[in-house]
Amino acid sequence: MLTARREIQIEWGDCDPAGIVFYPRYFAWFDACTGGLFAHAGLPKHEMLKAYGIVGIPMVDTRATFIVPSKFGDVVSVMTRITAFRRSSFDVEHKLLKGDVLAIEAFETRVWVGRHPDDPDGIKAQPIPEEVIARFKLG
Amino acid sequence: MLTARREIQIEWGDCDPAGIVFYPRYFAWFDACTGGLFAHAGLPKHEMLKAYGIVGIPMVDTRATFIVPSKFGDVVSVMTRITAFRRSSFDVEHKLLKGDVLAIEAFETRVWVGRHPDDPDGIKAQPIPEEVIARFKLG
Amino acid sequence: MLTARREIQIEWGDCDPAGIVFYPRYFAWFDACTGGLFAHAGLPKHEMLKAYGIVGIPMVDTRATFIVPSKFGDVVSVMTRITAFRRSSFDVEHKLLKGDVLAIEAFETRVWVGRHPDDPDGIKAQPIPEEVIARFKLG
Amino acid sequence: MLTARREIQIEWGDCDPAGIVFYPRYFAWFDACTGGLFAHAGLPKHEMLKAYGIVGIPMVDTRATFIVPSKFGDVVSVMTRITAFRRSSFDVEHKLLKGDVLAIEAFETRVWVGRHPDDPDGIKAQPIPEEVIARFKLG
Repeated sequence: MLTARREIQIEWGDCDPAGIVFYPRYFAWFDACTGGLFAHAGLPKHEMLKAYGIVGIPMVDTRATFIVPSKFGDVVSVMTRITAFRRSSFDVEHKLLKGDVLAIEAFETRVWVGRHPDDPDGIKAQPIPEEVIARFKLG
Repeated sequence: MLTARREIQIEWGDCDPAGIVFYPRYFAWFDACTGGLFAHAGLPKHEMLKAYGIVGIPMVDTRATFIVPSKFGDVVSVMTRITAFRRSSFDVEHKLLKGDVLAIEAFETRVWVGRHPDDPDGIKAQPIPEEVIARFKLG
Repeated sequence: MLTARREIQIEWGDCDPAGIVFYPRYFAWFDACTGGLFAHAGLPKHEMLKAYGIVGIPMVDTRATFIVPSKFGDVVSVMTRITAFRRSSFDVEHKLLKGDVLAIEAFETRVWVGRHPDDPDGIKAQPIPEEVIARFKLG
Repeated sequence: MLTARREIQIEWGDCDPAGIVFYPRYFAWFDACTGGLFAHAGLPKHEMLKAYGIVGIPMVDTRATFIVPSKFGDVVSVMTRITAFRRSSFDVEHKLLKGDVLAIEAFETRVWVGRHPDDPDGIKAQPIPEEVIARFKLG
């Protein structure tokens, strides 16, 4: 499966009074990393949403294990790949590395959703197009 | 075990272009809810850190299952309780409710940490004082 | 003019390694306070957007003077009012108080915008309805 | 004066339900850009804080004019420079560009602060070292 890599510079405002990253920031980066993986597969998310008429790929389940904290001034990298595709959902794995050390391991399950046909404010899962899935198998 | 309840008003800036809460925001609220639970137990976090000479209670593992999305204008409530204490770590459970509906279920494992004795920039797990644990058993 | 008041509890995750609020957080609160002022005037923003077919009330100019820092555990209050209405824009003033002390003074100019008629991705200023303006003069 | 340039990719989670950047995010980036300018001058902020025994360079006044909105998928750049140094404060200017178009203009006044000698929780302005100022005049 295709893997994308992103470098992240830990900024002052990402850190809490203990001087380490406030963990919700990691989830914001992981969200961007998942978007970056799609871009790496030739599907920049903002174009993909339009091209396939979907609203987003919201999270339904995520887990993260924090092994080594990071602090202001650190530069870390995140390796992101999709580990499974199902009919309308898929699993993503992120490994955040400080140098060669695995600092965080995270897992996501996301759904491919469009507007709900019966509720303009609602969202509804839709089948992931085969051609989308195919792009990640090339890696 | 003691349970704390917090009401959260979903604001415009909490939501993404799909019009639903950007999920890292939930983790920021859950962090505040865990702090709120300690306050409810008579241990406001900012006072507790000083009183026990610790640096924080950082996350080592968290998982969240997103069942129902929330959007701008919604008011939700979070029920938070500690489900287990170990020597220097503890487990927290959050249930985010929209009315009576369970919208998110989240779990955390956190560690009670002080400054590392050999590294002023580092942190190190410390035993959780018995009197701290006792406060949560009263609920 | 109508004034709205909101209480804000400073959380751990709002603060930076110096132990004081990371200032972009104030702007997120001020945005919510402006929304809260409209709600106080009987126009909850999420309903107002639909009722008047607008996309938002984006910021075009903002200034803040930070007089006294706030830190984790502080509870502050924000007094918000509109100081001027023009054809399609308006000015908002926020005073953030720590007890009786003025800690931050902030000013905003926002625009009443709808979708651009010629560009579905663009936005365009529209005249603010008289009945909207009238609601703030009652205070 | 030395000028630093930073490229920013607008992510999904930076944008609000109107599909444009939630403006407090710009301030988080500007804060990182000011840090980046110091790094560009040979003073990475996390090392500078230690080297000079200061707590931070908190904001005392900031203003931003938002001329053109940015949306998910945009890549923008920020040009940052210091426009004035005083005894213990300095002014920063940020120009955020979308291609060649000036999209945001922002100004900051920040203070060089250390721990308050009489209050371990407080902060106090200190004179900016001449050698720090000298580094920005070389640009």
